[in-house]
Amino acid sequence: MRLLLINPNISTSVSELIRAEAERSAAPGTTVQVLTAPFGVAYIETRFEALIGAYATAQLAAEHHEAADAVVVAAFGDPGLAGLREALPIPVTGLTEAALASACLLGQRFSIIAISQRIRAWYRETVQHIGLESRLASIRGLDEPLADIGHVQSNQGERLVALAERCVAEDGADVIVLAGAPLAGLARSLRGRLPVPVVDGVSSAVRHAESLVALQPGSARLGSFAPPPIKPNQGLSPALVRLLARGPIT
Amino acid sequence: MRLLLINPNISTSVSELIRAEAERSAAPGTTVQVLTAPFGVAYIETRFEALIGAYATAQLAAEHHEAADAVVVAAFGDPGLAGLREALPIPVTGLTEAALASACLLGQRFSIIAISQRIRAWYRETVQHIGLESRLASIRGLDEPLADIGHVQSNQGERLVALAERCVAEDGADVIVLAGAPLAGLARSLRGRLPVPVVDGVSSAVRHAESLVALQPGSARLGSFAPPPIKPNQGLSPALVRLLARGPIT
Amino acid sequence: MRLLLINPNISTSVSELIRAEAERSAAPGTTVQVLTAPFGVAYIETRFEALIGAYATAQLAAEHHEAADAVVVAAFGDPGLAGLREALPIPVTGLTEAALASACLLGQRFSIIAISQRIRAWYRETVQHIGLESRLASIRGLDEPLADIGHVQSNQGERLVALAERCVAEDGADVIVLAGAPLAGLARSLRGRLPVPVVDGVSSAVRHAESLVALQPGSARLGSFAPPPIKPNQGLSPALVRLLARGPIT
Amino acid sequence: MRLLLINPNISTSVSELIRAEAERSAAPGTTVQVLTAPFGVAYIETRFEALIGAYATAQLAAEHHEAADAVVVAAFGDPGLAGLREALPIPVTGLTEAALASACLLGQRFSIIAISQRIRAWYRETVQHIGLESRLASIRGLDEPLADIGHVQSNQGERLVALAERCVAEDGADVIVLAGAPLAGLARSLRGRLPVPVVDGVSSAVRHAESLVALQPGSARLGSFAPPPIKPNQGLSPALVRLLARGPIT
Amino acid sequence: MRLLLINPNISTSVSELIRAEAERSAAPGTTVQVLTAPFGVAYIETRFEALIGAYATAQLAAEHHEAADAVVVAAFGDPGLAGLREALPIPVTGLTEAALASACLLGQRFSIIAISQRIRAWYRETVQHIGLESRLASIRGLDEPLADIGHVQSNQGERLVALAERCVAEDGADVIVLAGAPLAGLARSLRGRLPVPVVDGVSSAVRHAESLVALQPGSARLGSFAPPPIKPNQGLSPALVRLLARGPIT
Amino acid sequence: MRLLLINPNISTSVSELIRAEAERSAAPGTTVQVLTAPFGVAYIETRFEALIGAYATAQLAAEHHEAADAVVVAAFGDPGLAGLREALPIPVTGLTEAALASACLLGQRFSIIAISQRIRAWYRETVQHIGLESRLASIRGLDEPLADIGHVQSNQGERLVALAERCVAEDGADVIVLAGAPLAGLARSLRGRLPVPVVDGVSSAVRHAESLVALQPGSARLGSFAPPPIKPNQGLSPALVRLLARGPIT
Repeated sequence: MRLLLINPNISTSVSELIRAEAERSAAPGTTVQVLTAPFGVAYIETRFEALIGAYATAQLAAEHHEAADAVVVAAFGDPGLAGLREALPIPVTGLTEAALASACLLGQRFSIIAISQRIRAWYRETVQHIGLESRLASIRGLDEPLADIGHVQSNQGERLVALAERCVAEDGADVIVLAGAPLAGLARSLRGRLPVPVVDGVSSAVRHAESLVALQPGSARLGSFAPPPIKPNQGLSPALVRLLARGPIT
Repeated sequence: MRLLLINPNISTSVSELIRAEAERSAAPGTTVQVLTAPFGVAYIETRFEALIGAYATAQLAAEHHEAADAVVVAAFGDPGLAGLREALPIPVTGLTEAALASACLLGQRFSIIAISQRIRAWYRETVQHIGLESRLASIRGLDEPLADIGHVQSNQGERLVALAERCVAEDGADVIVLAGAPLAGLARSLRGRLPVPVVDGVSSAVRHAESLVALQPGSARLGSFAPPPIKPNQGLSPALVRLLARGPIT
Repeated sequence: MRLLLINPNISTSVSELIRAEAERSAAPGTTVQVLTAPFGVAYIETRFEALIGAYATAQLAAEHHEAADAVVVAAFGDPGLAGLREALPIPVTGLTEAALASACLLGQRFSIIAISQRIRAWYRETVQHIGLESRLASIRGLDEPLADIGHVQSNQGERLVALAERCVAEDGADVIVLAGAPLAGLARSLRGRLPVPVVDGVSSAVRHAESLVALQPGSARLGSFAPPPIKPNQGLSPALVRLLARGPIT
Repeated sequence: MRLLLINPNISTSVSELIRAEAERSAAPGTTVQVLTAPFGVAYIETRFEALIGAYATAQLAAEHHEAADAVVVAAFGDPGLAGLREALPIPVTGLTEAALASACLLGQRFSIIAISQRIRAWYRETVQHIGLESRLASIRGLDEPLADIGHVQSNQGERLVALAERCVAEDGADVIVLAGAPLAGLARSLRGRLPVPVVDGVSSAVRHAESLVALQPGSARLGSFAPPPIKPNQGLSPALVRLLARGPIT
Repeated sequence: MRLLLINPNISTSVSELIRAEAERSAAPGTTVQVLTAPFGVAYIETRFEALIGAYATAQLAAEHHEAADAVVVAAFGDPGLAGLREALPIPVTGLTEAALASACLLGQRFSIIAISQRIRAWYRETVQHIGLESRLASIRGLDEPLADIGHVQSNQGERLVALAERCVAEDGADVIVLAGAPLAGLARSLRGRLPVPVVDGVSSAVRHAESLVALQPGSARLGSFAPPPIKPNQGLSPALVRLLARGPIT
Repeated sequence: MRLLLINPNISTSVSELIRAEAERSAAPGTTVQVLTAPFGVAYIETRFEALIGAYATAQLAAEHHEAADAVVVAAFGDPGLAGLREALPIPVTGLTEAALASACLLGQRFSIIAISQRIRAWYRETVQHIGLESRLASIRGLDEPLADIGHVQSNQGERLVALAERCVAEDGADVIVLAGAPLAGLARSLRGRLPVPVVDGVSSAVRHAESLVALQPGSARLGSFAPPPIKPNQGLSPALVRLLARGPIT
């Protein structure tokens, strides 16, 4: 099985964290390809940055999905995920969606630990879009500027643990979600240090993408995830044009 | 006052409908500029098309907002609206958001009439994001393929009226929202034919944009609509780079 | 355009604040009339006081609406608003509804700053009735008894600013709503002092009332905002009797 | 125990239905007094009529509560109930609130059968204010004009049964609420004819009012149901003035 | 009238508290029988313990309901309540459901005071199942291990009062619910000490059970509370088998 | 990896369907054990039957979990799932929870197809408990009595397909969930016949259980899924007593 993970940001150091955790998590026989957005910002904290990342992800997915069995949008907030689910003929998931699916199988209420204060509003809206706000205990974020997005884990590890403990003690969390691709793999290294189960986006997305391929649920010919109706377009990359030309499945 | 309306789609015929209704609606002294997306699709019905339209809108807004007092995202579903509200130093609104604001001042529950069946899921999610699902009576859509997006009104006028009447009689609507830029101006020509107040996105957006400018509520230096934090970026248009370089307001 | 603003309370000093801010906010050509309830209490903090204010407002509206193009219920909590929207043949809005409509066009989540602790429950229920509780970040109130309802702003200005700052820092507010007619105009004088956009009820209501008149959305002949069905009544003022005699629009 | 039931409408024929069912339902030793609004309309279907009925109820309650152990607002929609709960020193309930409390003890989802189409919007908002919309299966109403509000039951009995059967079969109702004082006592005469438990507002309110008196839960000295703070008032009836002079309990 | 109260736990000391409060609360002519679970745990704090208590309650109810007019599940969290409401031919209620019904007749928002921290998650889910989370102000619990479940009241009385005061001052509670059969009767002895009305589960359940019997709402022949369809079973107690053999009512 | 699937019902024919689909779905190296409840009913349609099935499941899980890496509650409605998640030291999931997790990765809104009308209320409450009611498009059920619970698929296959098509066309479903262990494997045989992706509970639960084991998220030492506190118990099976003796993890 071939999984394509797309980092919607330009940080190749984060892409390496993603790749490492994806490879550790993948089942035997699964191969992992990680692509980095050719345009955009270093990491997404805001709705505007997500909008840019979504388009970059769409471009890469259009170009490269044919060599994959499933696609993972490898940033929290899942920029572009719902759109790609319509357009691509293969399963797609994203880090937030996948992490929340895991969290909901482990407890009733989860908290999200994030890499900045600013990013919390964007995560909160992502959880609402997914429809799981009744299971969200809290979102807590680091409150210092990040010196280096590729090394958040080593610099901020103890602070992240302390945040998680407060989520359990004060907010009623049954599960902790470590959010953001820059934290990929941290759950693994914190194993046993937190008082509740801890979930990582990349490993969850890899496992769930593998499951979606294995379950073979079939494609959407109707409903709101069928391919977009064919209509005039202009100014798009050849790959996007090809994708839009799929049209209704018959 | 100068309003910039951006059509996130490539249809110049729809841009003309938008311009005409915007000019009819604007207060004396307001000038209206309408731009058409240089890339994208003919009209947005799906999440994937909205993702493309959002990026096109962001590009145009980055390039042209400096000559405007407020920006209107001139498609239903408001692609890119929340992101632009963070990034731009001036007020921004969108057709759905503005139409719903009007509808909520006219009755308790509203129905949305749309130009296709497919588009209903995307509108429904837009209403949920706005947080007004408890006031949504129904979304009904035309069920035939559109022959010509620039002439929906003349071709389908009677069908749209019949749909509106069912929204009132069967779904409990107090207000009708005619959704989609291709219907811009239809509310005006249906005046008196519907049994409840009817709201149009373009005229609502023009009026509310004018109000936001007049009220001078101030800018966001903090909170989730402050400008995105400055961080590395690459591969973006010069205008987007300039916009991202605004950084925190001090 | 002639706007009728009704202060549902007996405080003429508050009516003067309302008038001053309404006149500052109105478009050229709009004239403003402010009426003060002939019976009731000094200011509404509770459901019981709102019930009284609603009836006083209905009486005044019945008597005076014929000389107006739109009516504003000029107290937070909007006492009687929904009823008047059924009964009157012209647009009606209220300070809370209008302020929330503005706030929703400026950010995702808003906080309300109120003039007392007690009033918070009544505001909370008003926001729930409007259906926007998912966008409410918090309601914070002054915690000292008001010495003089007509001079809250000068006495308590700094405390109100401090409350607003906590709403942004601790509650996640993107927008601040300064609630209550006794604060009319304060947003204007605080311009630039708060870190997020700030909304005032009176100016929002004036602008939105003007928009409703300009948009000419039409009247409700059916639905739950059509005029109440004609039926026997007794003991009401002549103006209320006339209003109830409107009956279904044909 | 003395119960005071206030009909917020002017229909003495409905007051007689209320009295008859209240007397049939009351425990031994409970006496029932029924008052009819001296001003208002024949029956409440709309928000505007409810606003009038609320004020009439407040006037009567202020004047007569001292001779009672508990008060019942004897119309569906419970006009004025929350205000009176603040102002009166004794328990208060209303027909909708009490019927819903009974319904929730008998099944998970209830449907409401109402005397007209128009009244459904007002009932729906009442259920939302009570917070039980997730348990509301449907609201169905008679669709013909009422010839005589005091004789709905005999004229429309079969139609009401047919509506109830549809609520069970099509809407998933576990319990039927027969709504509106004009239907007082109908549940009793339909006993055994409906396939699910059926609840009546008057008998529920009488039983629950008796329970509130018996349970002696204590009064609110703090919180949002403490008596309204003392402040200037004018133009009110002597009884309302006395009630507003209660002030905080110490 | 004969009420059967079933303690789903094995603590006979708690059964005595239940019996004492039930007898104090019952109307003249009501007799009270209290049964104690023959298997299970000392008191329910978790979902797993509730699962055990539900089955023990079902066993006792199946065996003993024929001598009763109504059944009360006498533990907070109401283990087994909804199932028994389907299976038994007589009214059933539970301590949480009944206490919340009382609380909702006394104020808009209630807080729950519980005997431990752990139990809060289970109570929260119970309130959500009942559909009243919008009226829940908070759940606060004692934070020390219980020395003796039969003497919580005397050991912890002052702490419980302090918790209640914080619910009013900090959480906005209008009503306090003292939760858990081990607190049965405490509301009565705290009368006058709390600043808002206080509700007890046992007395509420006794009163509401009496009301359900008196109102004679009828049985469910259809809907989701009709008796379970007849089908093969095995390994159940003779009483459960008899209960399952009731089948559809015709 | 060893998975233990527990059929909470007494139908060994259904256990065989479960086993067959579990074995088809399991990854290489996973072994599957299926146990059948020694007491209970043929299949669960009601809350009362679920209560019995939950206890039977708890008994079997207590006795047999030590030989497994994860447990699956193999009935829709997931009887006992949340309790077992507290009590067992290994991951646990259930058919509904797992199917909904899959469905949410495939589309925005899902419909559930069930084996009877009656079962719909129980499923609806299960979805609400999971917190996903905003993503539930509809629940539709077969409306004829089941002749043979082990052969629903062959007898009713066409009817189930027709129901699914109506869910897509009329209810807006993006995904179909075929609910109930008696339908285990049907999704596989319908592959390609439905216009949207289709999800099966057994295969989803097997995949997600495998993922939970592989992800090694850690155990709950705190929070509401930590093992129940140790306290007196009596009358329980030795295996349940052993399970309750686990106590807090240190």
